[in-house]
Amino acid sequence: MDCIFCKIINGDIPSYKVYEDDKVLAFLDITQTTKGHTLVIPKKHLKNMYELDKETATDVFSVIPRITKALREAFEPMGFNIVNNVDKPTQSVFHFHVHIIPRYPDDGVHLSTPNHMENYKEDDYKKIAEKIKNKLS
Amino acid sequence: MDCIFCKIINGDIPSYKVYEDDKVLAFLDITQTTKGHTLVIPKKHLKNMYELDKETATDVFSVIPRITKALREAFEPMGFNIVNNVDKPTQSVFHFHVHIIPRYPDDGVHLSTPNHMENYKEDDYKKIAEKIKNKLS
Repeated sequence: MDCIFCKIINGDIPSYKVYEDDKVLAFLDITQTTKGHTLVIPKKHLKNMYELDKETATDVFSVIPRITKALREAFEPMGFNIVNNVDKPTQSVFHFHVHIIPRYPDDGVHLSTPNHMENYKEDDYKKIAEKIKNKLS
Repeated sequence: MDCIFCKIINGDIPSYKVYEDDKVLAFLDITQTTKGHTLVIPKKHLKNMYELDKETATDVFSVIPRITKALREAFEPMGFNIVNNVDKPTQSVFHFHVHIIPRYPDDGVHLSTPNHMENYKEDDYKKIAEKIKNKLS
């Protein structure tokens, strides 16, 4: 399979590993958006969150708190953004992966998440919630 | 406990619920950063990722793919950013919660995650990885 993360798992492409078990691999993101920026991936190839099964979710997200705490001890960041990108416009590698991004003062990371509360009335919220619930079969 | 999300779980504060089971609640983020912006929380009060236990991780992250797919069917976004903020500078409510943010063209959401690869040599990566591994006891 032509997946760069599967090649990293197989050792065909080198990486800087920080954690590995039978199901999960964690390695440094080569871009080091901030110091310690780590990717956590399941060894099983899943495209993204759409395909995440319960067992793999457990494997990956029971490891993430441990790595987050190790990063906290190692580099003493203020906190973290833990990010999973699904499809467009931000997913670049189509093997499920979670970014652990330590946050430091003036680190150049920005998450712009506008507040559009002034555009929504009670009835708008109700319609949106109803539409989602109808698709949750 | 003076936690706004615990009050939402208890029904003391109203919310627009999209999903609920014994362990997990999902409801609309009132800011609607984008249409369908949803928060998923465990009913058990945990401060953040530092305190996430395996069972709660399973409860929350086995529900998230279902909600993501329901949002995809309901609103046909290009994709999603799934974000968990830990402590400073971006965590505002200290009850573990995961943002599911649908992404649309020109939606005003920006994740600025600089690439600092040019500042790192092989030895720098190795030292960082080693430091994290040493803290993963």
